[in-house]
Amino acid sequence: MDVYEAIRKRRDVRSWFDSKPVPDEILAKILMAGHLAPSVGYSQPWNFIIIKKLETRKKIRKLVIDKRADFENRLNGDKKNIFNTIKIEGILESYLNIAVTCDFERAGPDIIGRSTMKEMSEYSSVLAIENMWLAARAENVGIGWISFFDPEDINKILGIPEKIKLVAYLALGYLREDHKIPELEERNWRKRENLSSLIYEESWGNNIDEKFSNYIDNTEI
Amino acid sequence: MDVYEAIRKRRDVRSWFDSKPVPDEILAKILMAGHLAPSVGYSQPWNFIIIKKLETRKKIRKLVIDKRADFENRLNGDKKNIFNTIKIEGILESYLNIAVTCDFERAGPDIIGRSTMKEMSEYSSVLAIENMWLAARAENVGIGWISFFDPEDINKILGIPEKIKLVAYLALGYLREDHKIPELEERNWRKRENLSSLIYEESWGNNIDEKFSNYIDNTEI
Repeated sequence: MDVYEAIRKRRDVRSWFDSKPVPDEILAKILMAGHLAPSVGYSQPWNFIIIKKLETRKKIRKLVIDKRADFENRLNGDKKNIFNTIKIEGILESYLNIAVTCDFERAGPDIIGRSTMKEMSEYSSVLAIENMWLAARAENVGIGWISFFDPEDINKILGIPEKIKLVAYLALGYLREDHKIPELEERNWRKRENLSSLIYEESWGNNIDEKFSNYIDNTEI
Repeated sequence: MDVYEAIRKRRDVRSWFDSKPVPDEILAKILMAGHLAPSVGYSQPWNFIIIKKLETRKKIRKLVIDKRADFENRLNGDKKNIFNTIKIEGILESYLNIAVTCDFERAGPDIIGRSTMKEMSEYSSVLAIENMWLAARAENVGIGWISFFDPEDINKILGIPEKIKLVAYLALGYLREDHKIPELEERNWRKRENLSSLIYEESWGNNIDEKFSNYIDNTEI
């Protein structure tokens, strides 16, 4: 699949999972795509924990349901009504889950490019996740990133040591259907921003000229 | 370009920039690829500051040179010798630079999926950067992520407000040449990890079986 097509068609998947098995050869390609991501000082700080056991997934889903309720209680009016129609996770319906972590000590203390920004290690694991997301899309496999939990609770369930940071909890499985528009847009939670309004020239707040601006907003990839 | 090819050929570019102009239509496609990245609660927290002025770039390069010297002073022996051969930035040789930021307040206080992990906003900007990196690669454009600076110093130079987080400073330009192997591997700074050793099943530390392990390490994408 063309890289632009994968970028365009990639969705954050909650509702559209098919539970049929994803073969190991496809899973291997998706994980290798993650592993070929850039990382600060070539530290490759990621680990991938593949979770298939329903028992584990149910425990994690319980955490998510609790935090969803907390969030819902903060909302009022329209926001609350819309949120009630939104599915936020496909932990059980997907074929498997993957926890992605970051080991700050992976490449020793002297990591090129990290001396002033420790978060560069976490960012590396995030770059790997986007590669996985796009590779998955090319295989008609969807990924959903779930973050309704206290990471420490997941760490306890999965036995992740204290020095390791949980970056993401992903659900992964074949897609039942394609969606052109992100689900949060379909459900009127929030619209796509105009890209041109997010681009500045030379310094913060200095808008790009009208010609480039029109050009940007009419760009289709 | 096929998504796997883009993932395989993408490099973190410092030494191989051509200074010839990247047309606005190509730049627009790369920025749109970033804008179509997933973001927590569809918050799209990114801004992109395009920097062409040599004066600004020279100021930023000065920061990088200083922090490089600090880092070099921490190293000894072989590490120091190898590091001395490594170019860490192409700020002036590239066609332009892009600062990528994160606005934690972009979508109001109630962002789906961020109530327990504030860093999800920063991670969203990082996902956008990987999309840009891969789209750029498809256009024969290279990107290098530079992080040898105190982000607050960049914020001062670019007028970035205090509540906005600088996530990345990128150099972008046409590629003079392709490199199969990451530069830090070519120069013997560090090797690629075996992917199979980074994958666990069901919980932390529980290695995958030999069959899947062999399979993973022989996967080519």
